[in-house]
Amino acid sequence: MEFSSKLLERAVNEMSQLPGIGKRTALRLVLHMLRQPKEQTLALSEALQTMRSDVKFCKCCHNISDVELCEICANPKRNKDVICVVEDIRDVMAIENTSSFRGVYHVLGGKISPMDGIGPHQLNIASLVKKVKEEEISELIFALSSTMEGDTTNFYIFKQIKDFGITTSTIARGISVGDELEYADEITLGRSIVNRIPFESSIKL
Amino acid sequence: MEFSSKLLERAVNEMSQLPGIGKRTALRLVLHMLRQPKEQTLALSEALQTMRSDVKFCKCCHNISDVELCEICANPKRNKDVICVVEDIRDVMAIENTSSFRGVYHVLGGKISPMDGIGPHQLNIASLVKKVKEEEISELIFALSSTMEGDTTNFYIFKQIKDFGITTSTIARGISVGDELEYADEITLGRSIVNRIPFESSIKL
Repeated sequence: MEFSSKLLERAVNEMSQLPGIGKRTALRLVLHMLRQPKEQTLALSEALQTMRSDVKFCKCCHNISDVELCEICANPKRNKDVICVVEDIRDVMAIENTSSFRGVYHVLGGKISPMDGIGPHQLNIASLVKKVKEEEISELIFALSSTMEGDTTNFYIFKQIKDFGITTSTIARGISVGDELEYADEITLGRSIVNRIPFESSIKL
Repeated sequence: MEFSSKLLERAVNEMSQLPGIGKRTALRLVLHMLRQPKEQTLALSEALQTMRSDVKFCKCCHNISDVELCEICANPKRNKDVICVVEDIRDVMAIENTSSFRGVYHVLGGKISPMDGIGPHQLNIASLVKKVKEEEISELIFALSSTMEGDTTNFYIFKQIKDFGITTSTIARGISVGDELEYADEITLGRSIVNRIPFESSIKL
């Protein structure tokens, strides 16, 4: 692609560094910015810049936060002894949206994935193990994706903490609400039969 | 969507103003930036900012340029009397890539589209008519998209300049190179038969 302007070329090149945005999409976005008022692009660039330099990670759960201790960890009404282990802050947001969890979180920052060069030491695992060892934790809930990498990460953490005698659990695998049985894959269907729950408890939800 | 950080929320909101980028994609992009080195986000935001404030439009053809007169208009080897009328700079780039045009361009900045609230006065049409009237132009090539809006724009410009006695042409409509005949739509196929060209001239290309 040949550009008639170096400034334009640089903006397109920087934009196309983002995942899922190729040169053509980047050019489309940049040309859109040129059609909009100048203030809009300045606001975007300023927001990205401030976010990148000023955003903090909660010193307790590694969630993104504007202050040292995030709102969830600082909330006295949350049970500090139940920790939900998640991959990233999108999962925190998703679980918070359900309003069904009153404990706290621990954000790992990814999953163990040798294919992508991510080992346990790049993730916030050591601080989790330290927390389990030193604080009074009653339960650890693994809420990672149900993939090979998620299961590996779960198992790695489980091995490190199994001697501390705390309860560990994993979120239920089963048929999604609204799904037709005939389209469910056999592993999911199999697990949902093995892990069946009393009917009385299901109608309470 | 509830965010644990106002800075993050603002960055996501600004990012999702861009066309084709929703809140979820914006969040994915912003979280990616947080995983990359700080310098990368600063480089992106600086590139966008400089581009938006310093980029110029060629005073002759309205192409994007870093200087007053773009490279194409300033090139003494290009035929200044043949003008190719295009919608935006992406079309200039596409035609330049073919290396088959040695004239100059005129970038309209869009197409007449009442549905989107774009009338002839928002486009660079007046300057084109002035150019045709005052300078020695021999041919105007319409290279707009083959849509209702493109055809309307072509016709609007044609009506304004038809009395100045210059040649006007439009790029050929026909079967794309590599296309199977049976999948071509009937209007395209019909036009390609009506506008057939001597076989000798086709093998020279």
